[in-house]
Amino acid sequence: MLGAAAERHRSGRASQALVPTMGALHSGHAALVDAARGANDVVVVSIFVNPLQFGEAADLQRYPRTLEADLDLLASAGADIVFAPAVQEVYPDGEPLVRISAGRLGETLEGASRPGHFDGALTVVAKLLHYALPALPADFRAYFGQKDAQQLALVRRMVADLDFPVEIVGVPIVRDADGLALSSRNRFLSPAEREAALVLSRSLHYLKGQADRHEPLDLNGALAMIGSVPLVELDYLEVVDPASLAPLAFNCQDTPFTGEALALAAARVGPVRLIDNVRLGAGQGPGAEPR
Amino acid sequence: MLGAAAERHRSGRASQALVPTMGALHSGHAALVDAARGANDVVVVSIFVNPLQFGEAADLQRYPRTLEADLDLLASAGADIVFAPAVQEVYPDGEPLVRISAGRLGETLEGASRPGHFDGALTVVAKLLHYALPALPADFRAYFGQKDAQQLALVRRMVADLDFPVEIVGVPIVRDADGLALSSRNRFLSPAEREAALVLSRSLHYLKGQADRHEPLDLNGALAMIGSVPLVELDYLEVVDPASLAPLAFNCQDTPFTGEALALAAARVGPVRLIDNVRLGAGQGPGAEPR
Repeated sequence: MLGAAAERHRSGRASQALVPTMGALHSGHAALVDAARGANDVVVVSIFVNPLQFGEAADLQRYPRTLEADLDLLASAGADIVFAPAVQEVYPDGEPLVRISAGRLGETLEGASRPGHFDGALTVVAKLLHYALPALPADFRAYFGQKDAQQLALVRRMVADLDFPVEIVGVPIVRDADGLALSSRNRFLSPAEREAALVLSRSLHYLKGQADRHEPLDLNGALAMIGSVPLVELDYLEVVDPASLAPLAFNCQDTPFTGEALALAAARVGPVRLIDNVRLGAGQGPGAEPR
Repeated sequence: MLGAAAERHRSGRASQALVPTMGALHSGHAALVDAARGANDVVVVSIFVNPLQFGEAADLQRYPRTLEADLDLLASAGADIVFAPAVQEVYPDGEPLVRISAGRLGETLEGASRPGHFDGALTVVAKLLHYALPALPADFRAYFGQKDAQQLALVRRMVADLDFPVEIVGVPIVRDADGLALSSRNRFLSPAEREAALVLSRSLHYLKGQADRHEPLDLNGALAMIGSVPLVELDYLEVVDPASLAPLAFNCQDTPFTGEALALAAARVGPVRLIDNVRLGAGQGPGAEPR
């Protein structure tokens, strides 16, 4: 054989990175490119607002598009190649008939309120991974933000289940000074909504403090914090296994926290849906693998 | 970029072929390896009876396994590498959570009586394509028999929809002298059943004769031929578009045949389910692309 996919992952070889984005780039994306730049010879960034992963047409339409500013940011961050295809290039035959199915991992948490979202997201990630495969012998890595924790878990699962010849690297959430996780949708928040939204990261870090001290997690206290902010309409606050996303017993027991978990929250704040999460316990380092 | 996947397909480069099989090899498989051998530097053959694409456990259990004979055949046919993994190697975490979904193309014809079959088949084909990706710059081709016409159409659709960097080559059906399409399941037929099964290819070639002469297709006559053989329990006989598998109007009209189509039949004969098909009209050459 000229060389098996599995043989690609050797140290000391050339390396190529893919950073898939939907544009409207901010410092969180810059952190992805920085991580890729620091570890790879060639860094490819894709900018594609993927219709397949949007439920409502309105959400797709108003998703921010800032290509000129994105290109400036990527030039500063040192991307080698920007791939910003039109919808017709990615889906020349219209919506694909054969797709990636996220299965039951795609039906919980974000998937519960966004049916089909993860099927659409994984389908375009599969396409982008194939586009960006190195043609020369090279390590191939793709970088995803830990903010979209369920997406990251599902991409890892897809890569394992379908044997994509790529290493998935998760990059820690970047937060504003006040703690709000950066998001392209934050720009739609009014000052009051933005202030209210801080309760998400505050409640999650409240749990993280308890986990760091190996105390029982006070889920009810965290829920009460969020409930006290009228502008925030909570969808879920859950503590799950980082890889399987299965709810963990910390949710309902009085046992001291041990091990590893992911605390996830999603809420509607004014016009937008926001998500945030923190890693609890071990394996919180940059790019740490949850499996 | 070190080189885009799309750039792989250049003439005059090295080439690597994958021939995915489930073993129990016969001359039809040998024709796949011959086609691959004739056009590629390196020929990889996989042998894997994929549990994911079997509905009934009984069908999976009794699927013939003839590894020693298979290896002899492959040595004669000139395969370079045989990949015959255990189930645990292919599915180390048990059944995959993230899979390929064949969509509505996987729900008709064979899919109507084998729910989930094509999701399972495409999932393992995706894995095998990733395993066998050339690590050096090389054209990559995968060879599939035209006998599994719906599978071939779906693999082509998957490769297009998910941008796998591979060229799919369809290889014509190999038939015994009496016209029966070779199948690993034919060995389970009694002499009387085998004789009865010939009505499938006979009825399909009856339609092909009409298509070749640009006459209206006598579907009712073909159905009557099959109906006259008591040992054959017809599931379907359909004339469809070769790429979309959508039923064509030839099924119900009296118009002369023009264009291209695929006539497909499936029937239960004794202990086994048999399928067969013929291409009608243009594009019947070896490896002809239906799209």
